[in-house]
Amino acid sequence: MALRVLLLDGPNLNLLGVREPHLYGSGSLDDAIAVASLTATELGLDLEHRQSNHEGVLIDAIHAARGTHDGIVINPGGLAHTSVVLRDALAGVELPVGEVHVTNVHAREAFRQHSYISAIAAFVIVGAGAQGYELAVRRMSRVLGGR
Amino acid sequence: MALRVLLLDGPNLNLLGVREPHLYGSGSLDDAIAVASLTATELGLDLEHRQSNHEGVLIDAIHAARGTHDGIVINPGGLAHTSVVLRDALAGVELPVGEVHVTNVHAREAFRQHSYISAIAAFVIVGAGAQGYELAVRRMSRVLGGR
Amino acid sequence: MALRVLLLDGPNLNLLGVREPHLYGSGSLDDAIAVASLTATELGLDLEHRQSNHEGVLIDAIHAARGTHDGIVINPGGLAHTSVVLRDALAGVELPVGEVHVTNVHAREAFRQHSYISAIAAFVIVGAGAQGYELAVRRMSRVLGGR
Amino acid sequence: MALRVLLLDGPNLNLLGVREPHLYGSGSLDDAIAVASLTATELGLDLEHRQSNHEGVLIDAIHAARGTHDGIVINPGGLAHTSVVLRDALAGVELPVGEVHVTNVHAREAFRQHSYISAIAAFVIVGAGAQGYELAVRRMSRVLGGR
Amino acid sequence: MALRVLLLDGPNLNLLGVREPHLYGSGSLDDAIAVASLTATELGLDLEHRQSNHEGVLIDAIHAARGTHDGIVINPGGLAHTSVVLRDALAGVELPVGEVHVTNVHAREAFRQHSYISAIAAFVIVGAGAQGYELAVRRMSRVLGGR
Amino acid sequence: MALRVLLLDGPNLNLLGVREPHLYGSGSLDDAIAVASLTATELGLDLEHRQSNHEGVLIDAIHAARGTHDGIVINPGGLAHTSVVLRDALAGVELPVGEVHVTNVHAREAFRQHSYISAIAAFVIVGAGAQGYELAVRRMSRVLGGR
Amino acid sequence: MALRVLLLDGPNLNLLGVREPHLYGSGSLDDAIAVASLTATELGLDLEHRQSNHEGVLIDAIHAARGTHDGIVINPGGLAHTSVVLRDALAGVELPVGEVHVTNVHAREAFRQHSYISAIAAFVIVGAGAQGYELAVRRMSRVLGGR
Amino acid sequence: MALRVLLLDGPNLNLLGVREPHLYGSGSLDDAIAVASLTATELGLDLEHRQSNHEGVLIDAIHAARGTHDGIVINPGGLAHTSVVLRDALAGVELPVGEVHVTNVHAREAFRQHSYISAIAAFVIVGAGAQGYELAVRRMSRVLGGR
Amino acid sequence: MALRVLLLDGPNLNLLGVREPHLYGSGSLDDAIAVASLTATELGLDLEHRQSNHEGVLIDAIHAARGTHDGIVINPGGLAHTSVVLRDALAGVELPVGEVHVTNVHAREAFRQHSYISAIAAFVIVGAGAQGYELAVRRMSRVLGGR
Amino acid sequence: MALRVLLLDGPNLNLLGVREPHLYGSGSLDDAIAVASLTATELGLDLEHRQSNHEGVLIDAIHAARGTHDGIVINPGGLAHTSVVLRDALAGVELPVGEVHVTNVHAREAFRQHSYISAIAAFVIVGAGAQGYELAVRRMSRVLGGR
Amino acid sequence: MALRVLLLDGPNLNLLGVREPHLYGSGSLDDAIAVASLTATELGLDLEHRQSNHEGVLIDAIHAARGTHDGIVINPGGLAHTSVVLRDALAGVELPVGEVHVTNVHAREAFRQHSYISAIAAFVIVGAGAQGYELAVRRMSRVLGGR
Amino acid sequence: MALRVLLLDGPNLNLLGVREPHLYGSGSLDDAIAVASLTATELGLDLEHRQSNHEGVLIDAIHAARGTHDGIVINPGGLAHTSVVLRDALAGVELPVGEVHVTNVHAREAFRQHSYISAIAAFVIVGAGAQGYELAVRRMSRVLGGR
Repeated sequence: MALRVLLLDGPNLNLLGVREPHLYGSGSLDDAIAVASLTATELGLDLEHRQSNHEGVLIDAIHAARGTHDGIVINPGGLAHTSVVLRDALAGVELPVGEVHVTNVHAREAFRQHSYISAIAAFVIVGAGAQGYELAVRRMSRVLGGR
Repeated sequence: MALRVLLLDGPNLNLLGVREPHLYGSGSLDDAIAVASLTATELGLDLEHRQSNHEGVLIDAIHAARGTHDGIVINPGGLAHTSVVLRDALAGVELPVGEVHVTNVHAREAFRQHSYISAIAAFVIVGAGAQGYELAVRRMSRVLGGR
Repeated sequence: MALRVLLLDGPNLNLLGVREPHLYGSGSLDDAIAVASLTATELGLDLEHRQSNHEGVLIDAIHAARGTHDGIVINPGGLAHTSVVLRDALAGVELPVGEVHVTNVHAREAFRQHSYISAIAAFVIVGAGAQGYELAVRRMSRVLGGR
Repeated sequence: MALRVLLLDGPNLNLLGVREPHLYGSGSLDDAIAVASLTATELGLDLEHRQSNHEGVLIDAIHAARGTHDGIVINPGGLAHTSVVLRDALAGVELPVGEVHVTNVHAREAFRQHSYISAIAAFVIVGAGAQGYELAVRRMSRVLGGR
Repeated sequence: MALRVLLLDGPNLNLLGVREPHLYGSGSLDDAIAVASLTATELGLDLEHRQSNHEGVLIDAIHAARGTHDGIVINPGGLAHTSVVLRDALAGVELPVGEVHVTNVHAREAFRQHSYISAIAAFVIVGAGAQGYELAVRRMSRVLGGR
Repeated sequence: MALRVLLLDGPNLNLLGVREPHLYGSGSLDDAIAVASLTATELGLDLEHRQSNHEGVLIDAIHAARGTHDGIVINPGGLAHTSVVLRDALAGVELPVGEVHVTNVHAREAFRQHSYISAIAAFVIVGAGAQGYELAVRRMSRVLGGR
Repeated sequence: MALRVLLLDGPNLNLLGVREPHLYGSGSLDDAIAVASLTATELGLDLEHRQSNHEGVLIDAIHAARGTHDGIVINPGGLAHTSVVLRDALAGVELPVGEVHVTNVHAREAFRQHSYISAIAAFVIVGAGAQGYELAVRRMSRVLGGR
Repeated sequence: MALRVLLLDGPNLNLLGVREPHLYGSGSLDDAIAVASLTATELGLDLEHRQSNHEGVLIDAIHAARGTHDGIVINPGGLAHTSVVLRDALAGVELPVGEVHVTNVHAREAFRQHSYISAIAAFVIVGAGAQGYELAVRRMSRVLGGR
Repeated sequence: MALRVLLLDGPNLNLLGVREPHLYGSGSLDDAIAVASLTATELGLDLEHRQSNHEGVLIDAIHAARGTHDGIVINPGGLAHTSVVLRDALAGVELPVGEVHVTNVHAREAFRQHSYISAIAAFVIVGAGAQGYELAVRRMSRVLGGR
Repeated sequence: MALRVLLLDGPNLNLLGVREPHLYGSGSLDDAIAVASLTATELGLDLEHRQSNHEGVLIDAIHAARGTHDGIVINPGGLAHTSVVLRDALAGVELPVGEVHVTNVHAREAFRQHSYISAIAAFVIVGAGAQGYELAVRRMSRVLGGR
Repeated sequence: MALRVLLLDGPNLNLLGVREPHLYGSGSLDDAIAVASLTATELGLDLEHRQSNHEGVLIDAIHAARGTHDGIVINPGGLAHTSVVLRDALAGVELPVGEVHVTNVHAREAFRQHSYISAIAAFVIVGAGAQGYELAVRRMSRVLGGR
Repeated sequence: MALRVLLLDGPNLNLLGVREPHLYGSGSLDDAIAVASLTATELGLDLEHRQSNHEGVLIDAIHAARGTHDGIVINPGGLAHTSVVLRDALAGVELPVGEVHVTNVHAREAFRQHSYISAIAAFVIVGAGAQGYELAVRRMSRVLGGR
């Protein structure tokens, strides 16, 4: 059976392509996911995508991934810097986690230098724009023992 | 067409008049909004009000203001001190923002001295009680090129 | 009339018994609540239980407890370390609060050493596992003037 | 008898309209005071204005306000961030204080995030430009029990 | 054979009931220990109590517990915040430790927020007044495999 | 020839007896100086007193003391916490310095815990009320080799 | 009946006159106490003196002062910087406390800048050498309503 | 002409496959570079590789890349956390930079949380093992306008 | 017309040659200015000198320089470390600023390591003694497009 | 006459060989002292040993060493990190001090990184196990001008 | 014999005129050294220049200056902020040191505010561009007792 | 076969006996190594010595020790406080490490209180002068299972 990866996007990522394009680029979230899906297909992965502006909805989705998915790629958006409960949800379901940020958070405000997610993630990719999703899918495939 | 302002109240502000009246005063949120509405009318503004205890609902409302409103006055309550995603939502829709706090946060606990919202706001009014909403409407009108 | 206590569980506690059993033990949340309920009955208290992964839902529940309950026992999970609005909700309804953590947060990561809730709680019990709920019910009974 | 408000401006505010107009706007201090005076008149307040670049002169003026004025609106300029003695003078005369900053100090250098005055002020208005004086007069009127 | 628990009280706890009763309550230490002893008897535990204002005496007592007791419940008083050697003594004898504070240390001075003991304790109970001893005995019993 | 001591009072000390009497007591500065003068006379010292709310005036007075006085007792008021130039003036004239604060600064706000003056003073007396001036005169007499 | 003052000296003060005379002066502790006793007699106070290198002994002595003395003058030596339990003992017996340090701690190592005792003391005298004891007795007399 | 990328490895990376294989994996640096080279070839890039344990040699190599290469992918190893001059060299030659770390530095010691390089890099990939080089080549290609 | 430079000296610099000569050297301020004036003449600059111990006087002088001078060389003395208003005055008049300190502030107390002026200065010269003024005049000449 | 060295062991070192043998090794304190004594004899030193869990007893012993011993080797245990009075006692008797820790404190908790003793010690040896005592005796002999 | 000065340039200064000309200016390092050499000649000094990107090479050069040179002018570049060994080398050879930075480091990133070299330098000149070398040569001449 | 120990000296230690002899003593590095070699011979160890001012050379030497040596004694000089790559090299080759500093770093500048090496060393000896090398050889012998 194909390996199943959950691709989660946190708050404000629905604005991709619209919000501050000098920082985030001009492609929409749909475009980015489409590219990531192509890569997943190429690598023989099942990729499911979900976006929410609600922390609670994200946590519920992570809990639900237990048993239905093999790994999680997450762009937590600004929750990375503030949410212990998101970290605890990810650690609690004991699936490998890849963290992605579209912009290079290290070149922005000081409070974006720390992510509660990173310490429990397997890998972190920042500043690679929408391509970051594709690279994360490539890495997650390998983490899960795939191609 | 009239300028349209979204007036947002964050968590616990529904308790206004009930919660810790020695800090917050004894008028209800409805009273405060009524006064702000009168001022808006006087200045020829359309004022829409929304309160929620859910961060995600506030973010959705901010996103929806894009295209339907010209400015946002927000009392983020305690989210001011902790929510990067609320800040990102406000910055993302690129509307002018006015921040209001009913109490003088600078005379309270240390963790209330910093607001993630303030740095991306146009102006901040604290400690003016319920009248703070009225003053914010007056300023927002001028920011938007109104009276 | 019996004293009424609201027992609230925050994000991820639905995973109890499943999540990281070396840290949290292997009993489920239902087991833990069952024991706490027995103790409540023994002490003549009405105990209502609620769990949510949504901060906003927890705040709404706390607001609703005003007038319907006499005290709140809360295991805020990771929100303890980050949520000013949860603290404000608890302080705003002016009911006595008992804080419980299943694990000994002081033996874990540095960011778990501080809880926004503790300073406005009447008492705090950490590291007593699921039994912590029972002990908290015992203490809350006494705080409320019960047995 | 009319309520009497002292409006004090600290160092460098005489440069208003001249100094860094992208930050401070292009209106002069006289313009700003004229508008505030109109508002005071409208509200039935006596407004006296004073500006000095000398901390000692400001303190002497505050001391002199004891008995001659009912409230003080002050734009302390950069002294806000460094002057304990200005704070002590304001606290010492036991009149209600409103603090105004023309620019949004929270969007500038880190050292402008803290004001010694704010903790002993009744209210604080920042970033509202010259209009901030007018809004402060409106609030002070209400603080003093006026219109 | 009955499980044996050493109940240790640190400096100033002999003043219980006398010292700052608004903080510590009006019952004496003897009263508190009497209640804890009843609970111990009910649970089939041997409880020995010791109080000293001398750090060295406490350390000697802890060392002596090695081989004669199965667990230690300690209210270290102010030593919690400053004594590495007390921590080392407790860790050195390798018995399970329960930490109790009569008052809610988290609602007091900043220096009371950190306890050197907590990180090596099995559980911590604060703010439950004299009842804290009873709750600690209940938990220690369970930790030791008792009722 | 008699030893000559300059007694300097910084900003806001002219309000003594008026300002916050629960903190500063109800005696006026004149009363306090009168007592200090009596002690000086008793010890055979010439005591000159000066108060100013202007940092620059205080510095000028310190410079002028070079050659005309043998020691300086100073209550710098709030300048203690902020003024490097006052410290430099005192260090620059190379006379022994005694620092006095009427209130116990260590029991007040955190920013009052540090004084730039203390490290270059010979002695520091805080919290002794107006009597602090008298005690400082007694000590300065001994420092200068007097009675 | 005469007012009774307990004069306590902490660790290492028995070395006075011997230890680092460039810092502490060359007079012995006995000399210093003799002078303080003379002053006490002059003011009609009973002065009892005690020195110990053992924190526990000092705490026992403070507890014993409850009911037998009216005020405590203490030179806590290095315990000032580290001992919460000494502070708690002094606060617990609810007698007025005067703190004395022979040297000017503010001109020494950084860790000597903070004293746990100062915040609960009525007054603090540092750097006045052995004369500090005499000045403290003078002030304590006045604090207790004596001459 | 093909785009030219310089792939630089800093100190200790020659130990890859040998050093702490539980952290760094068991493949050698040669293996990793071989894979990256294949990807480069696939994307039509010229890839040159260089490793040194000498900071100065790395800086010289970066300077030399000016005019001969179009972008730099660098795994600075531990120099990331300490070397301002390496950062200055990379910024000075004004080529796009991609930063790679084999391990997830965010899950290791605190001093590995900050990299001087990240703020001037276009993108950062950590914790992806040897595959990180391949992903970085893919991203650099896109940054340079390639496939 | 000759370029006009204002040379300002802050508090305590009138003591030059008198104050702590092991730190500041034994030449007077007049000597230092004389040398700087010679250099100015040699370079064809008009040099005006002003010293004050009053922050307010310095600010007034800086404001007055607007329109009458082309650049400002300032030795702010201890105000460098504490005065935001001096910084704001210098930034407000928008003339190039050179900062001079006679001693090497970096080899002195920690609080002398930071200057509010430096970040808005064009250049900073410290530790060059009285010659620092001459070097600053040379640099200011070049900054202004002179020789 | 032979040089006399006092070898002092602080709290919990009586547990050596018993306490946490994976950290402290399995040899007893008696074994360690026996080896150190042999080395002392070989070098012609008189070695006296003392261990106590009471800070006050250690201080008394240090005071008593004045005149009877020529140097002190001390393993302060956990008091190293918290005891200013132990430091003051050692500095006060003005004998050369060698500090020993059995474990490598730098590889343990953060609070073990700082020792109040080290700054006034002549030398420090950590992590050399029980052999550390022998090495310290060798060094002390040389410090005292012995072999 | 002429006084001999070693002028050292650290990493990346070979890029002068090329690297970030808006920060560093457009003149080459050769130009800057040529000007400094002219000034040296005018003052009768022998000036030797050396640049390296290798910390070790710089240290070797400093060691070699012992006996062959009378003073060192160094632009350590980014090593100023990170290199203790460079500081130790300069302090070790006991020659007077002048520190130069081409840009005003105080107006750049926070990590450029501290230089390990400054505290052991005789003087520091920053932000004077390439002219800084000339000014440093002028000052060094005077420090060495030259013209 | 004899156990082989590599003795490494970092930057500036070639100056031993020359550099700041009040801190480092007057014996040369050759003298120190000669003594250490004698001890090694006595204990049956092969001791190889290497000194370099180049971090990269030290790292290369450490890498080369893998397979040729059994343990490393290193005096990293100032690199201890700044070099993560040196730490990584030592950790990477997985040989036991002993750290030596000639002076007592804990009695010097604050930045010398932390060593990146210490946490991965087996033992640390500071302040024992040149004898420190001998003591380290003795300890390393025992660590390696030798005499």
